[in-house]
Formats: sequence, C-alpha cells, structure tokens
Amino acid sequence: MLAPWRSPLAHALHRNRSLVHARYLQLATVRPDGRPANRTVVFRGFLEPTNQLKITTDTRSEKATQIALCPWGEICWYFPKTREQLRLLGRLTLVDAHHPDTALTKARQIQWHDSSDASRVQFEWATPGQPRDPADPFSPPAPDPDDPLPNFCLVLFDPIQVDHLELRGEPQTRSRYTLDEQDTWQVESVNP
Amino acid sequence: MLAPWRSPLAHALHRNRSLVHARYLQLATVRPDGRPANRTVVFRGFLEPTNQLKITTDTRSEKATQIALCPWGEICWYFPKTREQLRLLGRLTLVDAHHPDTALTKARQIQWHDSSDASRVQFEWATPGQPRDPADPFSPPAPDPDDPLPNFCLVLFDPIQVDHLELRGEPQTRSRYTLDEQDTWQVESVNP
Repeated sequence: MLAPWRSPLAHALHRNRSLVHARYLQLATVRPDGRPANRTVVFRGFLEPTNQLKITTDTRSEKATQIALCPWGEICWYFPKTREQLRLLGRLTLVDAHHPDTALTKARQIQWHDSSDASRVQFEWATPGQPRDPADPFSPPAPDPDDPLPNFCLVLFDPIQVDHLELRGEPQTRSRYTLDEQDTWQVESVNP
Repeated sequence: MLAPWRSPLAHALHRNRSLVHARYLQLATVRPDGRPANRTVVFRGFLEPTNQLKITTDTRSEKATQIALCPWGEICWYFPKTREQLRLLGRLTLVDAHHPDTALTKARQIQWHDSSDASRVQFEWATPGQPRDPADPFSPPAPDPDDPLPNFCLVLFDPIQVDHLELRGEPQTRSRYTLDEQDTWQVESVNP
C-alpha cells in the first residue's frame, strides 16, 4: 500500500520535473567512528509495490562500508521550484550479488540493465576515493548490460519517518508522518 | 589564511549566484541514539578571517541538541549549474548568549542584526517540531534587531576535510583537501 507521504513526494517530483537535479537527494549515514557522512545520490524510483526508495552504489565506496555497520540513514531532499523539503529517516539494505533474497538480486539485475552506459561504466573505474593515477584515462569498455559487475550494489531505503516542510505560504506548513507499531502511518501537523 | 578549498567554493558560489538555493546546503549530524539526521540550512558566509562557515539555528531545534552531544557534522553542497559537489567534514560550535568567548557572542549579535525581519521573526514562533496549534496564526510582532532572542543561536562549522567532485568533464574530477597535524591543508587528486 502506498504510504501517505508518497502523494506529496510524487507532486513535488512532478512539479519540479524540469530540473534534472530534482531527482538528486542528500543521504546522511554514520561513519564507523561515529561521525556523520553526507553525499548526493540519484533517486532511482521505488521498489514497487513497496515504499522503499532505490539508489545504487559501488561496494568499494565508503557508504557501502558505513551502511553495513550502521543501516540507518536520513535523506534530505530539497525541491527548489516549489520550495519544499522532505526529510526521510529510514533503514538501508545493501543488495549485492550475494544477497539471499532472490527477488532482490533480480531487482538488482533489472536496475543494472535499465541503467545508462554512462552509469554502468563507472563501476569499471578505479576504486573511488583512492589517489588518482594520472595515466589512467578512465575509459574502460562498456560493461555487458545483462551481467552486473560484482561491485554494483542496489541500495534500498525504507522510511519510518518523513518530515515535509513547505516554505511557501504564510505561515509555513510542516507535516510529520510516522510509522507506528502496527505498521500504520500516522500524520500530524507540527510547528515549522 | 584562506584554506585552499575556499577558492573552488567561491567560484561555485559565484557561477551559481543566479540560483537562490545555491546558498542552501545539507547538514548531517548524529542523533543521541546514534542514527544520522540531515536537513537543509542556509549558508550565512564565513566568520572572517577564519575558514568557519556560519549558519543559524534555534536552540529549541533538534539539531542544537544533537550538536551539543556530538559536535561533528558533514555538509553536502550541490551546485546545479556547474554540476559540482562539495562535501565538508568538520566540527560544529553552538554560540548562544552564554558562550564564554565574547568575540563569538559579538558575532552572534551582528548575525542577528544583519538577518532579515522574516528570519528573525521565526525565533518568536512556537517550538519547532511540536504539534501545531491550529489557532496559532504564527504572526508575532517583529523582534528588536539589536536584541537577539535567547533561542537564537549562531552555529560555526570548522572543516577538517573537503571533498570536491566535478561531474562535468570526461572523466570527472575529484580533489580531496585534508587538514594535517601541522594545521596545513594538503590536497590530492582522487578517483571520482
């Protein structure tokens, strides 16, 4: 069943669709030493029919290591055109080739297949964040669209709380959606 | 002395100056329970002549509580026009009226004075994140520009590591700036 925050999110995505970067969001995680980390990632849609957001990452990236140790994240998503922000607190799942759930490894395969060549080729690049070899042209051949590289990882983000702030309007509007113990979403209006 | 990452940041701000939201950044912190938090805040310039970024917050907000317990944050700053991202890892300092450093309380006072009426009045609003009283019109009188409200807090962010990723170009470019033990910034080119 669609969570009630899916509707304002769909509206925001629609009304900001002219901006490529409206599909970029900031994902915060926690480093092994307890300090926070934060980076921009691309929203790849939902794992239908669930309310889990899909992103992708490289198993060699720091965020994969962070998520394996602490599976919690908070997404901050700002929509410039409509001046609204969604903050989603949730749990992260890493889906690599060895994930025991075959429905998820299948979803990973589809995600790889549906990616662009430009996205896929990045997984052939040298290890992210390592000192760069100036002789490396970063131009490996395009990988096979039917055979995900082993370091390609689908990441699922399962929200348990969503905070929706609309800066437009006098006064501003802010709603909080919380998943209760019966797995039902509760909504309340809170002070901006 | 200006840190070497100030120059690419100044360029990014300049080249994206037509976008109001180029001055909005996402600040990740850690909650008391160890889960991450993430929200959009407005960049208020540097505390000159230092390399500390200024933001403001309400002492009643969750982030003030989080920073008091864990002073580390990571800023993620995406510039849409030039397609570049800066990630800044650093230490946060809360400056309220009772801060022992009088130069900082003075800076807080100036920040309050230089804020717009619209910014200042938010500190008169009901406690952020609490259930909203539908009868509250959120229209208190404008506070005195010369007398900061007690819940007005200047926040300083002091970077120790900056990661600059430029998505434009084939291949992408990524540089990492790190403050070493001699308090000197080291720069290296790393894999995107």
